[in-house]
Amino acid sequence: MNKTAAIIGGGVIGGGWLARFLLNGWDIKCYDPDPSAKGKISAVLENARHALPMLYDQSLPKEGQLIFCTSLQDAVRNADWVQESVPERLDTKHKVLAEIQTYCRPEAIIGSSTSGFKPSELQQKTLRPEQIMVTHPFNPVYLLPLIEVVPSSMTGSKFIKNAKDMLTSVGFFPLHVRKEIDAHIADRFLEAVWREGLWLIKDGIATTEEIDNAIRYGFGLRWAQMGLFETYRIAGGEEGMAHFISQFGPCLSWPWTKLMDVPDLTDELTQVIADQSDAQSGDKSIRELERLRDNNLIAMMRALKQQGTAAGALINAHEKAMRKPLGDSSLMKTVSRSIPIDWTDYNGHMNEGRYGQIFSDAADAFMIKIGADSSYIDAGNSFFTVETTVKYIKETLAGEKVTVESKVLVSEGKKVKLFHRMQNEVGDVLATCEQFMLHVNLTTRKSCLPLPEVQQRMEALTIVRGENI
Amino acid sequence: MNKTAAIIGGGVIGGGWLARFLLNGWDIKCYDPDPSAKGKISAVLENARHALPMLYDQSLPKEGQLIFCTSLQDAVRNADWVQESVPERLDTKHKVLAEIQTYCRPEAIIGSSTSGFKPSELQQKTLRPEQIMVTHPFNPVYLLPLIEVVPSSMTGSKFIKNAKDMLTSVGFFPLHVRKEIDAHIADRFLEAVWREGLWLIKDGIATTEEIDNAIRYGFGLRWAQMGLFETYRIAGGEEGMAHFISQFGPCLSWPWTKLMDVPDLTDELTQVIADQSDAQSGDKSIRELERLRDNNLIAMMRALKQQGTAAGALINAHEKAMRKPLGDSSLMKTVSRSIPIDWTDYNGHMNEGRYGQIFSDAADAFMIKIGADSSYIDAGNSFFTVETTVKYIKETLAGEKVTVESKVLVSEGKKVKLFHRMQNEVGDVLATCEQFMLHVNLTTRKSCLPLPEVQQRMEALTIVRGENI
Repeated sequence: MNKTAAIIGGGVIGGGWLARFLLNGWDIKCYDPDPSAKGKISAVLENARHALPMLYDQSLPKEGQLIFCTSLQDAVRNADWVQESVPERLDTKHKVLAEIQTYCRPEAIIGSSTSGFKPSELQQKTLRPEQIMVTHPFNPVYLLPLIEVVPSSMTGSKFIKNAKDMLTSVGFFPLHVRKEIDAHIADRFLEAVWREGLWLIKDGIATTEEIDNAIRYGFGLRWAQMGLFETYRIAGGEEGMAHFISQFGPCLSWPWTKLMDVPDLTDELTQVIADQSDAQSGDKSIRELERLRDNNLIAMMRALKQQGTAAGALINAHEKAMRKPLGDSSLMKTVSRSIPIDWTDYNGHMNEGRYGQIFSDAADAFMIKIGADSSYIDAGNSFFTVETTVKYIKETLAGEKVTVESKVLVSEGKKVKLFHRMQNEVGDVLATCEQFMLHVNLTTRKSCLPLPEVQQRMEALTIVRGENI
Repeated sequence: MNKTAAIIGGGVIGGGWLARFLLNGWDIKCYDPDPSAKGKISAVLENARHALPMLYDQSLPKEGQLIFCTSLQDAVRNADWVQESVPERLDTKHKVLAEIQTYCRPEAIIGSSTSGFKPSELQQKTLRPEQIMVTHPFNPVYLLPLIEVVPSSMTGSKFIKNAKDMLTSVGFFPLHVRKEIDAHIADRFLEAVWREGLWLIKDGIATTEEIDNAIRYGFGLRWAQMGLFETYRIAGGEEGMAHFISQFGPCLSWPWTKLMDVPDLTDELTQVIADQSDAQSGDKSIRELERLRDNNLIAMMRALKQQGTAAGALINAHEKAMRKPLGDSSLMKTVSRSIPIDWTDYNGHMNEGRYGQIFSDAADAFMIKIGADSSYIDAGNSFFTVETTVKYIKETLAGEKVTVESKVLVSEGKKVKLFHRMQNEVGDVLATCEQFMLHVNLTTRKSCLPLPEVQQRMEALTIVRGENI
């Protein structure tokens, strides 16, 4: 049975939580008394449905059921997870948490999206403090993996463990913050950078656009994959981190920042910033900027996924955890996925090269089925493709969900010929591929016979299934 | 004739400048009295030769000539650009700048890599202050596009313009810092974040690894593509940046950072950081970390390149500026490029899907040659591929430089059949492709005749060149 999440408060953040759970197969009960909440959530959900499936090289679970509730009681009653994302006022949070605890299961996790309050502050005067913790997300919540999980000493350790497991199961990275402090961890950095940015603008040193360029063409690229300390470890060279600190530590006493002061946010300064931001980005609507940001994030995160590093390693692990055996009832189904935005070209459809990639993935999945899996490859055996013929039958578009079915046409000694057929959701055949492969020894890089069990399975499939294409 | 850069000071930063210029076809004269300099530079250059060509979908210019000089005089004498990257002491910088100006051309640009000094400080007591400015790079200099160009009021405006043009021509993004301040722009942010990070470790809130995860799984990904202000513009929603400030401005007065103080870098704190860093990354050598960082950067920047956004837009512009017409002498050469790391698979060679991509690129280049270029496509005409047959003849490896030659086999009305042959540098044929295409109307998505001039060129090529494959 699907797990259920109650989403209490449905702005951009609540909507992001909702989308992440829903698209990972959870049922959702959402409550927000604001009449505009449903519209805001729909907008987030539309972005998320475009973006999240594109991160993966296989399809996500079937979407759960989405119910908008008319009372908080209905929303939280059977929830496994209750996510509170109401405005940042402590009295409001206390009121909502009290109502949640009146109706929710005692074993449910109650996570708060707060960026400003510590869990011990939220837990004041609550019925069951053990089930409450901060679970602080980052926008766009449906794409960025980081959740700061901040318990207090009153939060139950079993609740912490369950929360981390559930977050991981929907593709988040739970960062367990071991000591509660104001603003947790990430926002302390954001706050420091934000203050410095305001000073640079106030003093007329740089505009919003110049600051953004200083970030995204330089250290932003470094931080997206390694963060701060691993980057500086490299700068320290073989002599290590202590050497780096001895070399660069002294700068700390130089007058390099304005951080001792906070600039007054006068109307004048606010206007300067707003005008600069309009000059920088005013030609695009927020909706267009969101789509641009999401497409950039998808493309970069998919690039890291292909490398198996940084945020990409998290996506690979999530994908592996979601992977179901394709099953005997659909013996030859070898691919089930959505087409990502970075696969299309100037003709507005999937580039021909990506068909080759899908059929290559289909062959990989097929080989795993017949036992030519990663341990087979680690032992020095593999199949190399010698010739492929792809027929492009119908245009394939970004976001389309496709499946591939695969068959063996020929299996003779070291020679194999596979046939793949790619279809969309309504059953149109989009393309077919004939793939002629040779079995090789990965050390000598020369062709040789497959190991007997692989060859037997291949031949068995040929006889049973090869008769009609 | 090649331009010449003099590299004065050959550590990681000087070596990065050297590699960037050299791989963009500049001749290099390098001077550093330290006997270990040559080894350090070779290490940087090896990384750069692996990394930089992979950023592009075409080959870089032919490498320039690299000469290690035994005197500063020899190095700077005929240089168009002199880059000073000596240690961060003002008296050392003054001494070196005086010697550079004694021997260099008065019209040469003298850039300093300093992160700490203002240009007016460097210019004190110099012979020709107008040719001196700060050009502050970011490690790895051969990959990251950002250069902070910081002139003082004494720097000549013609020198500033020339410097920006030359930096752009080797793929950098020159960020013109209009008012000189301590630490320029980017390092002010780095300094703020570094201080905050030290406090979090000192207070036992988070380890180096937890901080890095908080950055790279969250805001690091946002900043790599949009920076700070455009990201917050989205958070402000349709109501704009002023709304965002009114909503989040008040946090500035909350006790969210420790930035008023600087922690003492005691031996004990240094040791804590070094130990945490060892626990996080100690299983990898600095060389391995550098390669990991570079591969991640290549993959992410290539992803942005495919989107045509953020740092990827810079690479596309640089690529376009470098593009030479393939020329009548090599009429059918349609691809010349290096194979990037993100194109290989578990068999240790280029994945079969990427052959399709290269041959698709070859067809694009061919079409441009015969007039079916971007304006032809904008007018609603294009060729769609209907069937391809690829023969994989020899394994293709990451880093290999390949070229493709293309011919017309058949051109009959709306039908075209192209033939492509891909070779490596020593002339081995790696793969061939036959590509059957149909001309289409992009509005109706139906086949139709090409425009007459395109059809005529295509048919002319068929007759002249189709006779042997």
